[in-house]
Amino acid sequence: MKEYRTTIKVRGYHLDLYGHVNNARYLEFLEEARWRMIEGSANLQAWKERGLGFVVVKITINYRRAAVLDDVLEIVSHVHHLGGRSGMIKQEVLRGEGDAVERVADAEVTFVVVDIATGRAVAMAGEIRDALAPGES
Amino acid sequence: MKEYRTTIKVRGYHLDLYGHVNNARYLEFLEEARWRMIEGSANLQAWKERGLGFVVVKITINYRRAAVLDDVLEIVSHVHHLGGRSGMIKQEVLRGEGDAVERVADAEVTFVVVDIATGRAVAMAGEIRDALAPGES
Amino acid sequence: MKEYRTTIKVRGYHLDLYGHVNNARYLEFLEEARWRMIEGSANLQAWKERGLGFVVVKITINYRRAAVLDDVLEIVSHVHHLGGRSGMIKQEVLRGEGDAVERVADAEVTFVVVDIATGRAVAMAGEIRDALAPGES
Amino acid sequence: MKEYRTTIKVRGYHLDLYGHVNNARYLEFLEEARWRMIEGSANLQAWKERGLGFVVVKITINYRRAAVLDDVLEIVSHVHHLGGRSGMIKQEVLRGEGDAVERVADAEVTFVVVDIATGRAVAMAGEIRDALAPGES
Repeated sequence: MKEYRTTIKVRGYHLDLYGHVNNARYLEFLEEARWRMIEGSANLQAWKERGLGFVVVKITINYRRAAVLDDVLEIVSHVHHLGGRSGMIKQEVLRGEGDAVERVADAEVTFVVVDIATGRAVAMAGEIRDALAPGES
Repeated sequence: MKEYRTTIKVRGYHLDLYGHVNNARYLEFLEEARWRMIEGSANLQAWKERGLGFVVVKITINYRRAAVLDDVLEIVSHVHHLGGRSGMIKQEVLRGEGDAVERVADAEVTFVVVDIATGRAVAMAGEIRDALAPGES
Repeated sequence: MKEYRTTIKVRGYHLDLYGHVNNARYLEFLEEARWRMIEGSANLQAWKERGLGFVVVKITINYRRAAVLDDVLEIVSHVHHLGGRSGMIKQEVLRGEGDAVERVADAEVTFVVVDIATGRAVAMAGEIRDALAPGES
Repeated sequence: MKEYRTTIKVRGYHLDLYGHVNNARYLEFLEEARWRMIEGSANLQAWKERGLGFVVVKITINYRRAAVLDDVLEIVSHVHHLGGRSGMIKQEVLRGEGDAVERVADAEVTFVVVDIATGRAVAMAGEIRDALAPGES
């Protein structure tokens, strides 16, 4: 999968007590960005019908700057690497253009593909590896 | 089902741009209250395994006062009536005690029980009616 | 404000127990669509700085068909009318194209513009009325 | 602050495509648990009025088992340590009782207290340290 860029504009319902995007809301922003990245390579509904699920097992997220109303956030996502039974997606949430780009947040998202019947991670091999591997296709 | 009362305390992540509980968040509060009311009478997981789903088909909600951080909201829910193929739950969101109770919001929630395979509403009869009918049991 | 059309694709995190978009989630879809419609006519952050808030006071929503994973939903929003101190936005959630368009949900959203200091609705007049009135500009 | 235990029951609207609690939803569960823990020691609304905000700067969360409908999750939270300008809360999401307790998820949540006007972290000293320090009071 190629690097994927998508934008989300901060709305009033994304904010919390301090007028900043709430920490849990970022995880939805990141999840939306991952779905958009993945849908070009893998049809998760078809995977599900074959008994395979794409499951997040670990997220590390740094909140570096507060995002506020009307901010346009660019989310840059890419598969960083695939291991034998897991992989890792890196995602950055950026704001601004040109020399003024600031990093609002960044995250590492570790995932597995599970056999839904057993809950066990399957090997990142064959068709699955082809669909999820980092690169240009 | 009897009238059911539950409380939710307003937290920072429930708020929006204006420091008020956001309109969509109320629907989660109301849904949580309905689950708590229903679980004493009906096991929706068991219903699902038998091919039956509890589905909301219409909500009318009035937002009457703004709820803010640390408000303790009491949600009062009851089945108002059952018809042939649908029913209606009334829910009130209250704040304060004794003479000082204020109505923050109120809603009418129309629901059906569907045959999941066909998507069609089934008759509110027999065991289903017994489980959902308003009253003391 | 003109009729405004926006699309949202249904993702795994929008679904519930039955694999359908959950009723509370629709309110976020509708809110996102309203923000997109309004931002061309009114800057709610600037309004807030002047002490004015855009507040929803009533929503009536009909859930007509279940939306499932990968559905592309088109949300059509327009200001239906403005009264003296309130207005109403109509929103439809549609699926499909051409002759096959289905209505997934529709909603009537009544709103007011409030003086944030007093919580009272202000008159839909002058600049406010110009910004929110239905029409081509 | 003492270790704090709270329970949340998994409802249909917490689930996703696979019938499991969605990864972003856990962050709301954890946030709710932190609010309940903190409110005994610190009034965040009063802090806000004095210009101080409680802000999460990093979360690491491991999703170890899938939580499903009707699971009763116990969330155990405690302040693990306070440093000079930040602190860390550990949270576990458990399921089951006695010998059968399973870890569903665990998280490390790094936080700061910021001067809202400047966005800078203040020292974890004096009253702030007293309110947030781990321990029995």
